[in-house]
Amino acid sequence: MTRPSGRQADQLRTISLEAGVSRYAEGSCLAKFGDTHVLVTASLEESLPGWLRGQKRGWVTAEYGMLPRATHTRGRREAAAGKQSGRTQEIQRLIGRGLRSVVDLVGLGERQITLDCDVIQADGGTRTAALTGAWVALKQACLYLKQEGLITDDPIRAQVAAISCGIYQGSPVLDLDYAEDSHAEADANFVLAQGLGLIEVQATGEERPFTEAELHALLGLAKSGCDQLFALQRQALGL
Amino acid sequence: MTRPSGRQADQLRTISLEAGVSRYAEGSCLAKFGDTHVLVTASLEESLPGWLRGQKRGWVTAEYGMLPRATHTRGRREAAAGKQSGRTQEIQRLIGRGLRSVVDLVGLGERQITLDCDVIQADGGTRTAALTGAWVALKQACLYLKQEGLITDDPIRAQVAAISCGIYQGSPVLDLDYAEDSHAEADANFVLAQGLGLIEVQATGEERPFTEAELHALLGLAKSGCDQLFALQRQALGL
Amino acid sequence: MTRPSGRQADQLRTISLEAGVSRYAEGSCLAKFGDTHVLVTASLEESLPGWLRGQKRGWVTAEYGMLPRATHTRGRREAAAGKQSGRTQEIQRLIGRGLRSVVDLVGLGERQITLDCDVIQADGGTRTAALTGAWVALKQACLYLKQEGLITDDPIRAQVAAISCGIYQGSPVLDLDYAEDSHAEADANFVLAQGLGLIEVQATGEERPFTEAELHALLGLAKSGCDQLFALQRQALGL
Amino acid sequence: MTRPSGRQADQLRTISLEAGVSRYAEGSCLAKFGDTHVLVTASLEESLPGWLRGQKRGWVTAEYGMLPRATHTRGRREAAAGKQSGRTQEIQRLIGRGLRSVVDLVGLGERQITLDCDVIQADGGTRTAALTGAWVALKQACLYLKQEGLITDDPIRAQVAAISCGIYQGSPVLDLDYAEDSHAEADANFVLAQGLGLIEVQATGEERPFTEAELHALLGLAKSGCDQLFALQRQALGL
Amino acid sequence: MTRPSGRQADQLRTISLEAGVSRYAEGSCLAKFGDTHVLVTASLEESLPGWLRGQKRGWVTAEYGMLPRATHTRGRREAAAGKQSGRTQEIQRLIGRGLRSVVDLVGLGERQITLDCDVIQADGGTRTAALTGAWVALKQACLYLKQEGLITDDPIRAQVAAISCGIYQGSPVLDLDYAEDSHAEADANFVLAQGLGLIEVQATGEERPFTEAELHALLGLAKSGCDQLFALQRQALGL
Amino acid sequence: MTRPSGRQADQLRTISLEAGVSRYAEGSCLAKFGDTHVLVTASLEESLPGWLRGQKRGWVTAEYGMLPRATHTRGRREAAAGKQSGRTQEIQRLIGRGLRSVVDLVGLGERQITLDCDVIQADGGTRTAALTGAWVALKQACLYLKQEGLITDDPIRAQVAAISCGIYQGSPVLDLDYAEDSHAEADANFVLAQGLGLIEVQATGEERPFTEAELHALLGLAKSGCDQLFALQRQALGL
Repeated sequence: MTRPSGRQADQLRTISLEAGVSRYAEGSCLAKFGDTHVLVTASLEESLPGWLRGQKRGWVTAEYGMLPRATHTRGRREAAAGKQSGRTQEIQRLIGRGLRSVVDLVGLGERQITLDCDVIQADGGTRTAALTGAWVALKQACLYLKQEGLITDDPIRAQVAAISCGIYQGSPVLDLDYAEDSHAEADANFVLAQGLGLIEVQATGEERPFTEAELHALLGLAKSGCDQLFALQRQALGL
Repeated sequence: MTRPSGRQADQLRTISLEAGVSRYAEGSCLAKFGDTHVLVTASLEESLPGWLRGQKRGWVTAEYGMLPRATHTRGRREAAAGKQSGRTQEIQRLIGRGLRSVVDLVGLGERQITLDCDVIQADGGTRTAALTGAWVALKQACLYLKQEGLITDDPIRAQVAAISCGIYQGSPVLDLDYAEDSHAEADANFVLAQGLGLIEVQATGEERPFTEAELHALLGLAKSGCDQLFALQRQALGL
Repeated sequence: MTRPSGRQADQLRTISLEAGVSRYAEGSCLAKFGDTHVLVTASLEESLPGWLRGQKRGWVTAEYGMLPRATHTRGRREAAAGKQSGRTQEIQRLIGRGLRSVVDLVGLGERQITLDCDVIQADGGTRTAALTGAWVALKQACLYLKQEGLITDDPIRAQVAAISCGIYQGSPVLDLDYAEDSHAEADANFVLAQGLGLIEVQATGEERPFTEAELHALLGLAKSGCDQLFALQRQALGL
Repeated sequence: MTRPSGRQADQLRTISLEAGVSRYAEGSCLAKFGDTHVLVTASLEESLPGWLRGQKRGWVTAEYGMLPRATHTRGRREAAAGKQSGRTQEIQRLIGRGLRSVVDLVGLGERQITLDCDVIQADGGTRTAALTGAWVALKQACLYLKQEGLITDDPIRAQVAAISCGIYQGSPVLDLDYAEDSHAEADANFVLAQGLGLIEVQATGEERPFTEAELHALLGLAKSGCDQLFALQRQALGL
Repeated sequence: MTRPSGRQADQLRTISLEAGVSRYAEGSCLAKFGDTHVLVTASLEESLPGWLRGQKRGWVTAEYGMLPRATHTRGRREAAAGKQSGRTQEIQRLIGRGLRSVVDLVGLGERQITLDCDVIQADGGTRTAALTGAWVALKQACLYLKQEGLITDDPIRAQVAAISCGIYQGSPVLDLDYAEDSHAEADANFVLAQGLGLIEVQATGEERPFTEAELHALLGLAKSGCDQLFALQRQALGL
Repeated sequence: MTRPSGRQADQLRTISLEAGVSRYAEGSCLAKFGDTHVLVTASLEESLPGWLRGQKRGWVTAEYGMLPRATHTRGRREAAAGKQSGRTQEIQRLIGRGLRSVVDLVGLGERQITLDCDVIQADGGTRTAALTGAWVALKQACLYLKQEGLITDDPIRAQVAAISCGIYQGSPVLDLDYAEDSHAEADANFVLAQGLGLIEVQATGEERPFTEAELHALLGLAKSGCDQLFALQRQALGL
């Protein structure tokens, strides 16, 4: 089996996480996983949506979007269509859930941080790039909160990163690009918390059912990939 | 650890799958997993949505809804709200994807089967009950197609069933009800194809990250649960 | 004239009203008028919509929906379409208005009861079955309020039931099923308050105008039909 | 009993029906029932909505709207709210149904006539004024079709008019204005076809149930009122 | 060059501004620019939208609509389409901005005046007719406020009027009607404040770019046209 | 008068136009006007919207969006809100109109080019930066069409660029940034066609009316600014 990109089975694409790219946002990150480019901003609001008020805790949420021509062919602009697709909602729910799993919401205080993940260019793996970059932006926003004296302890308990894996031409491979993703027999997205374990596993047999052994192999690749992402996250923030 | 319902860790709720409950639909099933009741109808349409026409294959899709008072407190009617929630879309995408994975769409011919899964009463596990019942309704519709001479071979290649599992008070348990689901440390939904393996795994750490060993244990429970569901599906259809 | 069902002109279909069918709702009723099956739940909320607050009275409202395959051919799911049809809104307004006409809203106190009427299967007369069942569910909710000590007097002043009638092949007949309804020359829906008179009359010439004598004949049938429905409502609640 | 306007119980408001008020529309009518002013245009389109094509018949439909400040207090503009209210839909369905009941749709040919009924000022009875004026506009459009040689026979079989009646301070009165309508014990809208009988009856007990005798009395008033409206319609068109 | 209407290049259409045409509104004006007829009402509300509360100032805003058959061919009703077009929003924003530019919002006090501009019939120049009439309705509403003792000083600092001009067959002309507008090489809308200068200029090259000299010529026509409109506004209000 | 940025009155911000930034789009440009960054892609589609088919000409259109945190405070995501604001629609209409004014639509052939203008970061003047960059992307797409042999002649007749000007502290200044824009007495957007003249002028008195002399001064600045932009556009494409 040869990957379209010539990468090894367990090799990530060239990845860069650049923090602080937005002039205005309290936290931000431009996450590039090869040709997949996602801009993430973390926006701090000192107020909460109605259903969360008065509970002495904060909230972390995410929104996801894709520029209409981020992909090979132009997709319809969701703002013009008047609604977000099921896929968009599924992804933004995944990102929000993954981040909240490592945040002490009581420690955050009655404020909200919104992670806007906008895909500038897509070549597979946009949700995992978004989540990995979102952690950087979120962390930066929490450091800002601390620096401003609004909180005393950083409410983030662990790093979170995500990566996709899949079975391509019968072999498990790490970090699918679009050429692989569109022909994968099975694919999976893994969200991991550094040093703690699994946050989320989403595995789907696209062309055929998959076995427990294959799931195990994909998970092994994901662990190795996330270890590299954790290092890149720390490096992006100078931690 | 004692389960709220007094069940064993690997024990399903009382489950019934009743086929043919609708007077009009080409296939139907009332799936009861304890107090979770889902009515599924399979509607055959001899036409396809525009984006699928002329490709010499059919389509299987699903829609999901919950009656406003299926739950402890009344939820807003989605038709009145003017849109389906992200959760609804996520579930109906899961059901459609799971069913399509075992259907020969070319063999189905240029027609569409829509599985409407409506939750009459909810006590946890509505998406897995829906998918398990939807397979019964879909199978019935395909048998109808064959009987009417519209197709010669049944396009369904395997049975599909789904079940939820979770870590409750530190222990892996099968088929969560609401009392468990709302306090589970982690929960997972598994979709299995009979004799073929895994179709979909969705596992989430709700209260804490989970380990690979825990994922393995949950999967073991799911396999045993789905074996029982496969038998109930065949029994419902007299196969 | 022979009715498709073989019924006498003044004969109702087999009707059953089963109260208390929902595990969670404060009141509920499964109303079956032959093959028309409507599930009604009454949901109590100790709050009011904004426009009703501070007026020292409560509110009773209704919502109506039809499962997509309740009918011969599948209809579009209103939640997916993003809006309720004019027909749906017309029906839910009728049900709410009919029920409110016999409720002492001041006596109900500053709370709201919502009647969700969902058509599981449709064979004509869904709005009248819904309203007749909704009264049972509403009554049960009011009895619950009294039993819980939240009110001292039952705010319901009278029973309300509804029935359709029509001119079929030149003759007035009671309780149209779909086979009759789709070919009726005229049809009418009557809402009556037990012992008090008419709450609502909606009569339409479908194939031709109708005469005052015909309206009179239809009304006579409706009175006789509602008398039977009133008895069934009391029986369903053991009153 | 004295009516707020000083009118007799069986007295209409000052009514004028002015045909041909629009520069562009194929038919039009400004209907004034006292201070209720409704502008109706009939627009001819030589095409049909998709669901009606190929059936060798035409269609007549109506849309209804109210200028935001047609009433005592400003109402929200439906175009800004993004949807038509249930009341609006109910009214436009009533108008369309009433007009179609006297039109030979096959004779009309494969074309559509849309009656736009826009309330410029409202003082009660807007739906009946709209329907009465809409007949005039529709007739004018059909005469235009005939004059242009597009049809040979006028497809309108009879005149249609509508009027409201109600029980005010215990007495049946004709043609309610807002002052009466807002305090009526019961009100009713009647649609009549000239020389043929009843097209639609919608009677509602607002403050209390009403009796069959009251319904009979209201109907008597409506007949007398519609006879006057029929004469005014003919006069407006010079027939 | 001969104008389709036979008018001189600098000649307005026959214009009438009739104030006080609505029975209910605090201010109103029926503005007729030839066959363009716009009904404007000014509605006073003693409350403000949420985002304006507590700032010790009021607000003036406008909404614009067109009856479906105001034009040669019927347009879709925006309320039925479920949204206002970009054109509609552009126009109502222009009208609101133009009026606010001459109102002392602090002096108005914490209340809102909404100008509803509804086009009854359109023959070009609806936005300028609307704005010119809206000033009359707004002024009337402010006079009402003063008369009622709710304010002591009229918050309107100047008259505002608007007119369109364009290059038609190479020549600058004033007050385009539809026949000219649809073939103009360039057109422009000017909003002027009496005695103060320009409030808004919107000039567009439709068929070709235009020169600064042409812009200058159009502005000259607009000034002369607005002077006439200012006189008509005062006359309409007896000022 | 000192500008917040220290610029001269007639000095543009540092401007860069980078063509070809998108991996997939037929044309693209990242336009930076100081801290205002707009990404524009030109997407070629070999089909037309229904209302344009069969007219033997093509179409050029634009869509505009702003990332939620492009600004100082986060704005609501339009896709989540379910509609585009009036401001968004106004801007995208302006861009489409401006570009079409210099395109030979017949020469383009029956195809559509959509310019997606997405604001990554905003510091005033986003619409003019978007339009200036959109011309570059559009030109690149037309060169691609020619190179692919799909057309023989470039359908673009002239360069188009846009710039904002305003009256700041009494003085006319070129290319407002946000600090100036939010306090400008008047502002204006100018769209110019190179060598041909004015395409569009939109001038608004924000704080006060403005004079014809001021409009003249702003236009002078705009001409000088656009001359520089035209040079930058050619340079970006190596023309």
